[in-house]
Amino acid sequence: MKGFLVVALVSMISIQAVSQNSDEAQIKKIFDTALSDGQSYEMLKYLTTNVGQRLSGSAGAAAGVEWSREKMKSYGFDSVWLQPVMVPHWVRGEKEIARIVNSKMGNMDVNICSLGGSVGTGPGGINAQVVEVKNFEELKALGTKNVQGKIVFFSRPMDPTHVDTFEAYGGAVDQRGAGASEAAKYGAVAAVVRSMGSNLEDYPHTGGMHYAPGIKKIPSVAISTLHAELLSKLLKQDNGLRFYLETYSETFEDAPSFNVIGELKGTERPEEIIVVGGHLDSWDLAQGAHDDGAGCVQSIEVLRIFKSLGYKPKRTIRAVMFMNEENGLRGGAKYAELALQNKEKHIAAIESDRGGFTPRGFTMTAPQKVKDKVKSWKPLLESYGLTDFDQEGGGADIGPLGEQGVPVMEFLPDSQRYFSYHHTEQDTFDKVDKRELELGAASMAAMVYLIDRYGLK
Amino acid sequence: MKGFLVVALVSMISIQAVSQNSDEAQIKKIFDTALSDGQSYEMLKYLTTNVGQRLSGSAGAAAGVEWSREKMKSYGFDSVWLQPVMVPHWVRGEKEIARIVNSKMGNMDVNICSLGGSVGTGPGGINAQVVEVKNFEELKALGTKNVQGKIVFFSRPMDPTHVDTFEAYGGAVDQRGAGASEAAKYGAVAAVVRSMGSNLEDYPHTGGMHYAPGIKKIPSVAISTLHAELLSKLLKQDNGLRFYLETYSETFEDAPSFNVIGELKGTERPEEIIVVGGHLDSWDLAQGAHDDGAGCVQSIEVLRIFKSLGYKPKRTIRAVMFMNEENGLRGGAKYAELALQNKEKHIAAIESDRGGFTPRGFTMTAPQKVKDKVKSWKPLLESYGLTDFDQEGGGADIGPLGEQGVPVMEFLPDSQRYFSYHHTEQDTFDKVDKRELELGAASMAAMVYLIDRYGLK
Repeated sequence: MKGFLVVALVSMISIQAVSQNSDEAQIKKIFDTALSDGQSYEMLKYLTTNVGQRLSGSAGAAAGVEWSREKMKSYGFDSVWLQPVMVPHWVRGEKEIARIVNSKMGNMDVNICSLGGSVGTGPGGINAQVVEVKNFEELKALGTKNVQGKIVFFSRPMDPTHVDTFEAYGGAVDQRGAGASEAAKYGAVAAVVRSMGSNLEDYPHTGGMHYAPGIKKIPSVAISTLHAELLSKLLKQDNGLRFYLETYSETFEDAPSFNVIGELKGTERPEEIIVVGGHLDSWDLAQGAHDDGAGCVQSIEVLRIFKSLGYKPKRTIRAVMFMNEENGLRGGAKYAELALQNKEKHIAAIESDRGGFTPRGFTMTAPQKVKDKVKSWKPLLESYGLTDFDQEGGGADIGPLGEQGVPVMEFLPDSQRYFSYHHTEQDTFDKVDKRELELGAASMAAMVYLIDRYGLK
Repeated sequence: MKGFLVVALVSMISIQAVSQNSDEAQIKKIFDTALSDGQSYEMLKYLTTNVGQRLSGSAGAAAGVEWSREKMKSYGFDSVWLQPVMVPHWVRGEKEIARIVNSKMGNMDVNICSLGGSVGTGPGGINAQVVEVKNFEELKALGTKNVQGKIVFFSRPMDPTHVDTFEAYGGAVDQRGAGASEAAKYGAVAAVVRSMGSNLEDYPHTGGMHYAPGIKKIPSVAISTLHAELLSKLLKQDNGLRFYLETYSETFEDAPSFNVIGELKGTERPEEIIVVGGHLDSWDLAQGAHDDGAGCVQSIEVLRIFKSLGYKPKRTIRAVMFMNEENGLRGGAKYAELALQNKEKHIAAIESDRGGFTPRGFTMTAPQKVKDKVKSWKPLLESYGLTDFDQEGGGADIGPLGEQGVPVMEFLPDSQRYFSYHHTEQDTFDKVDKRELELGAASMAAMVYLIDRYGLK
């Protein structure tokens, strides 16, 4: 009980310490601007429907870079520049074919897609028996004698009982990331992974995978959740059925690309930098609307709202469109590397990479004192739906900054719909609600405003 | 400060008073069941795609009644019955035509729909000049000499700066409800009302309107928000332009219909009744998925979850599908009338009529002591996204129960997308997210569980 009262007292004092009335008014102006005169939705429309997919190393990614640069210049930010970075260049290839063959039900095409970074089967394809496992322990128990020469089917679903879908994702995604190499250790010829999707759907979800050093690289694909269920069912009827896989994915030499950065220079402490960012690259199957076009346009919108309100930040505010979050994180690493090299002083970094959904709060990784300070602002933010400030975490792109000791935060929108679209052909502009997107941009602007005004010390 | 501490102490004591651990476990079971083995989404699929629109007095409404009855019987609820009620029988008619004529831009068809309850123009149509107003004050200031013989165009938009879209709706909907009679007072021949939509869209939003007694009944239609903007623009260029309107809506004699009720009998205090409900009727333009198929299937799902968990409520729990919320509220009135007549003791009523979106909390109209008790349960509910317990209000259908002194609550989902679909052709099954719908059902079940267990005294 004592602890509770102390927290109550401390938070009340902190609230009084900020000039609550003027902050309330300023935050209301930020939200009003986003909701009545916002540009994020129009920006996203262009980025998704005119630029389209933006996989690292692709023409779409290059177009995304140029669009971001021009867009931020058009808003008259103090500086806009490109930060060169070499990125992996993986290409899906023209055809992706998968078929359940010789089952008691006959042959049946199923919906798959290569996982990012996977090798392809090439023209001959792979035709093999299938062994289903739920996790790496089951795989290990089966061992080489049961796995050799077969395709390993990783079928563990995302657990629907997690209210936060990111927890369900975290509990299943090891199959996608490491499944191929785990299977190859026992002589498997390919890996088929149940898609990381919340629901039963027709379409597969791609996403990054990586090969362990020294292990044979075998093709790895995701299968739609509906076809994963079907395959499980057919295997129960006939565990001798075969699976045919034909893919042409390939990794080329690293390609030149860029982070895109726009900046409003601080008026009082220009050397102190606050970053807001998203990642400009997307997977190749769709438009990258929620992942992460939304985060990019919201980040630009933060600076645009400040300009439009005539708000002159004390500190320097940077919008960063990171390149290559999906399959390499090279942009985030490069940004942090140069920040260190140039002795830049980042006081906070905020990422938006959980979709353009209705606001719930912010995650944070920082010393407890910093967290407490951010939480003391909750009374200013909760009427906008921002009530959750308790989760650990920052975004992937700003992770390397976090490792340098910079407090990192991630904008936390509602998670229910994210894994219906994530990394699929369904991640398109029409899945984004205008007001939800705008509220996210305003939430980030409000947080940046408070950090700019009061710092995080 | 003292007040704050007292509230903190009181709420801590209340929390301890409930057996928090077993409640936590029970509520988790409720959510797990809804998310991993839920039936609400399949129910809604059938109700929206097989039954379809359910306007009071229509064949669709009758089919909805029969479907609800059979569905609840199939789940083995203790009792399922129909409660007869006479409802208004308004029919849109086959054709709805509207056109801007003789403007400098030439003629242009625009998207309109009759408002519910409106008279039609009949075959001759109405062709008249247009006078635009933002509100009833402007209308009054214009007076008969400027309005006589013209069409009044009510063009005030929903204010986008309200974070809660229901507030924006509340601030604009007087134009739809009362605009026609207000205009007719000054001799107008028809009313055209900007649709109650959050965004700029092609399609019009219907909704209820009412004629004031003793005032001439003139046709009243909604125009899509995009065409409302267009009409405003053209009127600025040419205030002599004319508008042509041709509609065939008509009101017939009241028709027989039903509330549909399912019940689990209480084991300890069967005479104490807790109602969960939604309204079965919908507008005729679409499937009534969010409004209010969602609320109906969530209410059925509450009882089904209890049955599936083997939870035997102490009190009697009733799922009520009210008929005729949209254009008469006859079902809600009848239910309350019979409750009084039969001396039933309702201890709480919870409605879901704000769409099948992700949970935010509950509104409540009740004595302060009751509100405090409900708020003391917040620690059990907030990890499910239920954080807002501060808003006044219950649902429309349970309003008449509320007037009898019954504590009334409304499930409060996120409001951002509601007025993109509300009362339009867009309110279809595909706009409902499975997990969001299921979380809503579980939220209602958790609240009913706590009320059942602890009462509201």
